[in-house]
Amino acid sequence: MAYEGILINNRCEILKKIAFQGEKGAFSEEAILSFFDSQIVTQPCNFLNDVFRVVESGKADMGMVPVENSIEGSINQTYDLLLTSNLKICGEFILRINHNLIANFNVDITKIKKVYSHPQALAQCRKFLESLRVEQIPFYDTAGSVKMIHDNRHDDAAAIGRKRAAEEYNMKILSESIEDSSYNYTRFLVLNKDDYEITGNDKTSVVFSTNYIPGALHKVLGEFVERNINLTKIESRPIRNKVWEYTFFVEIEGYRTEIKIIESLKQLSKFTLFTKILGSYPKSHN
Amino acid sequence: MAYEGILINNRCEILKKIAFQGEKGAFSEEAILSFFDSQIVTQPCNFLNDVFRVVESGKADMGMVPVENSIEGSINQTYDLLLTSNLKICGEFILRINHNLIANFNVDITKIKKVYSHPQALAQCRKFLESLRVEQIPFYDTAGSVKMIHDNRHDDAAAIGRKRAAEEYNMKILSESIEDSSYNYTRFLVLNKDDYEITGNDKTSVVFSTNYIPGALHKVLGEFVERNINLTKIESRPIRNKVWEYTFFVEIEGYRTEIKIIESLKQLSKFTLFTKILGSYPKSHN
Repeated sequence: MAYEGILINNRCEILKKIAFQGEKGAFSEEAILSFFDSQIVTQPCNFLNDVFRVVESGKADMGMVPVENSIEGSINQTYDLLLTSNLKICGEFILRINHNLIANFNVDITKIKKVYSHPQALAQCRKFLESLRVEQIPFYDTAGSVKMIHDNRHDDAAAIGRKRAAEEYNMKILSESIEDSSYNYTRFLVLNKDDYEITGNDKTSVVFSTNYIPGALHKVLGEFVERNINLTKIESRPIRNKVWEYTFFVEIEGYRTEIKIIESLKQLSKFTLFTKILGSYPKSHN
Repeated sequence: MAYEGILINNRCEILKKIAFQGEKGAFSEEAILSFFDSQIVTQPCNFLNDVFRVVESGKADMGMVPVENSIEGSINQTYDLLLTSNLKICGEFILRINHNLIANFNVDITKIKKVYSHPQALAQCRKFLESLRVEQIPFYDTAGSVKMIHDNRHDDAAAIGRKRAAEEYNMKILSESIEDSSYNYTRFLVLNKDDYEITGNDKTSVVFSTNYIPGALHKVLGEFVERNINLTKIESRPIRNKVWEYTFFVEIEGYRTEIKIIESLKQLSKFTLFTKILGSYPKSHN
């Protein structure tokens, strides 16, 4: 592993390497730069499972992966990877998403005939794009569409992306915050080999499977209710080829070493085929 | 609305128009062609909300939208659109997904240097692509990547897509079923202005919100358990700007006019801020 470093007070500090999926300037990279206050370097990966792989192998220190309401990522894929990986969730971060119309520096907004971006980004800026009367062309990711406009030196096309993507490629923002709705976010999870230390304001992510529902699920939730443990998320996923078995991803408030959490998870095992703690981590402040 | 028709027994039958998001040859179009046994025409739409819009306005008769584990679609977006639309779910269809390496007719597999497809399709064919030693290039959708290879007459590139996409553009399948895992599916919902008639083997989709969990959710599930109503899916979504309120999407077995379903939904209202029935429809056979 090749470390990168910087000089701080004449001492070379080793920079932590944080992996993400996407191009430079992608939402996930922005989440990394907002989440980490210490010195870090970002490491782009082509695929989401590469992020898991490089952290597992130690080629990166941590990873940042989208998990909810993402504009570009796949939530199910992240859950599937969490299910089989030994990595732990050590943090969460919620990134508010806004979109900008980005073009090369010599280009004026009146010259724009085509706008490229991820289909969801185009859909989220529908009113603005309709008023602009341009052709909308879907592209595989927002930062990728900005890079493509840049690399091909388009002078009649723009891309929709983040401010950071415009900065990355030295491009011009023709119009800011062009999305129809102002409330749009992506929730990210931070991956590490170990979970985070207890802070007193924590969440624990757990995955379990039941072989019959709703009976079993009702009993599982009863264990949390009985101990005043708040549930902040629940999601069911069918298990491959097993019609009556379901995997549930739940998030509860509290740290995995707290007695009430330990007891509830112990009781859970009566109604589940397996239970796996995906990690305990501080709740996001944003 | 312009109807298309065919002659059957010397009588002109009006074809039903079924809307989907994507290019011709997309997974959603394949789901339509597999699901409907009667005479239909498919209508491609650029965006998922266009599918809802054309069915609501009567420009199409029904719509087919991906809702679960989709390779290309957005599950959350479908749920968000269902929440605000007056359309009903009138059917479900599960499409097994397999991937094929597709190229122009004059192209041999040994000539392939680049493979284009949706990032998730590339990820799902990782082992095959690694053995082929080709550059993997992400594209916004699978059928779109096949069309692009065709339109640009690439002779050193292939795309990953469905058999139907190859047929649509008169192209060659270089290698079939190239995915790493053989179990991969997308679940679709059929949208209509009304839900389907009772068949005795039905499901009902319901959305509701609670203002505190897990207490309320536990009580809601208790109403189903008490009446032996099976739950086949549950998913929580945070409500915009309301930290402690959650929307739940659940699917239960049974038809909305069955007494036990009516009673359970009536009791539900004690613990929920609102409840909306998204539709009753026959369970998928596949």
